[in-house]
Amino acid sequence: MGIKVGILGYGNLGKGVECAINQNPDMELAAIFTRRNPESLTPKNKNVSVINIADINNWIDKIDVMILCGGSATDLPGQTPKFAKLFNVIDSFDTHAKIPEHFKNVDLAAKEGNKTAIISVGWDPGMFSLNRMYANAILPNGKDYTFWGKGVSQGHSDAIRRIKGVKDAKQYTIPVETALSKVRNGENPDLTTREKHTRECFVVLEPDADPAVVEHEIKTMPNYFADYDTTVHFISEEELIKKHSKIPHGGFVLRSGKTGWHNENNHIIEYSLKLDSNPEFTSSVLVAYARAAFRLNKEGATGCKTVFDIAPAYLSPKSGEELRAQML
Amino acid sequence: MGIKVGILGYGNLGKGVECAINQNPDMELAAIFTRRNPESLTPKNKNVSVINIADINNWIDKIDVMILCGGSATDLPGQTPKFAKLFNVIDSFDTHAKIPEHFKNVDLAAKEGNKTAIISVGWDPGMFSLNRMYANAILPNGKDYTFWGKGVSQGHSDAIRRIKGVKDAKQYTIPVETALSKVRNGENPDLTTREKHTRECFVVLEPDADPAVVEHEIKTMPNYFADYDTTVHFISEEELIKKHSKIPHGGFVLRSGKTGWHNENNHIIEYSLKLDSNPEFTSSVLVAYARAAFRLNKEGATGCKTVFDIAPAYLSPKSGEELRAQML
Repeated sequence: MGIKVGILGYGNLGKGVECAINQNPDMELAAIFTRRNPESLTPKNKNVSVINIADINNWIDKIDVMILCGGSATDLPGQTPKFAKLFNVIDSFDTHAKIPEHFKNVDLAAKEGNKTAIISVGWDPGMFSLNRMYANAILPNGKDYTFWGKGVSQGHSDAIRRIKGVKDAKQYTIPVETALSKVRNGENPDLTTREKHTRECFVVLEPDADPAVVEHEIKTMPNYFADYDTTVHFISEEELIKKHSKIPHGGFVLRSGKTGWHNENNHIIEYSLKLDSNPEFTSSVLVAYARAAFRLNKEGATGCKTVFDIAPAYLSPKSGEELRAQML
Repeated sequence: MGIKVGILGYGNLGKGVECAINQNPDMELAAIFTRRNPESLTPKNKNVSVINIADINNWIDKIDVMILCGGSATDLPGQTPKFAKLFNVIDSFDTHAKIPEHFKNVDLAAKEGNKTAIISVGWDPGMFSLNRMYANAILPNGKDYTFWGKGVSQGHSDAIRRIKGVKDAKQYTIPVETALSKVRNGENPDLTTREKHTRECFVVLEPDADPAVVEHEIKTMPNYFADYDTTVHFISEEELIKKHSKIPHGGFVLRSGKTGWHNENNHIIEYSLKLDSNPEFTSSVLVAYARAAFRLNKEGATGCKTVFDIAPAYLSPKSGEELRAQML
């Protein structure tokens, strides 16, 4: 009998969680919960129950962990505290500035329900945070660098789509190779926004739009593009669908630090991800932490946790003996 | 009042620990313990007590964590269980095949003394093991790769020094770039020993030695060199001292894994280290885990642990609130 997992929200992330559960023999998908009409969903898994969120209370005893697959802007701030009273929950809340507040709300709720909640799980926040933290603990005298990409930024793609005359668009964030090389060489550069990333945009225009006007509007857009070297390509809708429908992403977390009595030795710790599918990778991290939440709750740990609070062994289906013999 | 740390053994690793403690304001070096005549040691820290190991029992109440800096072959199998009865201890035991046995011995001893022991701390085993484990938990359907170097292998350097006619030698293990590229490209290659690493040797000969004979003996040495493409350079003792006295090392841990309902998406997780000083980096990891051992023991956790069992936050001097606000 596996760990019974529920999925709340069946967008890209929820679909990724469905796939990831399928790769983990110790877990089983119990049900998918949705705000939509359940009959409008067609899960990949033909036999799974699809339930309207209004009936979620009937599932309290049938779900070991609920993975919340909503968005950080409007879904999770309400959903995670609400459902942490009823279920062990995992979310991927990624509004960095609001994490302390979200943590507090979820912690209160989870303790009230004697449940275990793990928030901000994924790769950034998530695996990138973990690697920053480990590297800082090991090399206290050093400097951190994070580069994102090459990958699709949903926020920047949306910003382009809101411009008058744009029918559709995809934006790639690209780390600057020379900046990355300087960091790897231990040069500890101070890098401006422009020196770290470039932005490449693929844009489909409405029939009457003026490409020069649209390009100017993109390149001068404050916060999103003005501080970057931005390239704009106008392409057909067919080409956008054919060549830019995937959601790849990734990035690099580096720490460059000194050791020795006179700080004479330099060390570079680098963690990087190259992901064909951003949501599927995030989902895979969520599912590993769902295993941890289930186990921790069984041991009596309640309240809100983050990746910093979870001993790595809780993520693995292997026993302590197996991990020590095979992976140490 | 900081965490009071003892160092047992004052070789390269012990010296590195001394430097690392100096970088961590919440820790202080209480004493260095040695089997040698204490007066023969000259610590970098002028005021620290140097104590013969015979008198270690007088320090039981004055040390929060003892970092054992001996070797895995003959020192640690006896020392770690012995001192885990008396102190919270950290070691860097790295004989992979004997870890399960060492764990058992240390666990019994630490539980007997109500102490916390963390074994096999460093980078491999240690940070590399952690990254293998996290990556396996996230991507169950995948393949692991570890490359070492570029760096000095002490074992291979020693093996060359044992050859008749060799006065001194340094051996560098070098990862093969094309193999690494194939892995990064998601090609999931099956790699032979020869395809993964090359070996480069810098050798100082005794006056009468025949370079051709020595080179042949190195290149055909079973286990150490026969399965690798090996380059041998004969150089002067002066050049060896001038250019090859540092102990750099590093390496790469990669996992290439598939997600999606039809395994249609590939992901690469890569962790790498580029270290100017192998012992100083290892020491820095030991000191971070010493903080964890101290805290865990204060919470009542006893027995033997590995890096898999330690929640990351225990390594950091920052509070949970600080970590969430600054690093998540």
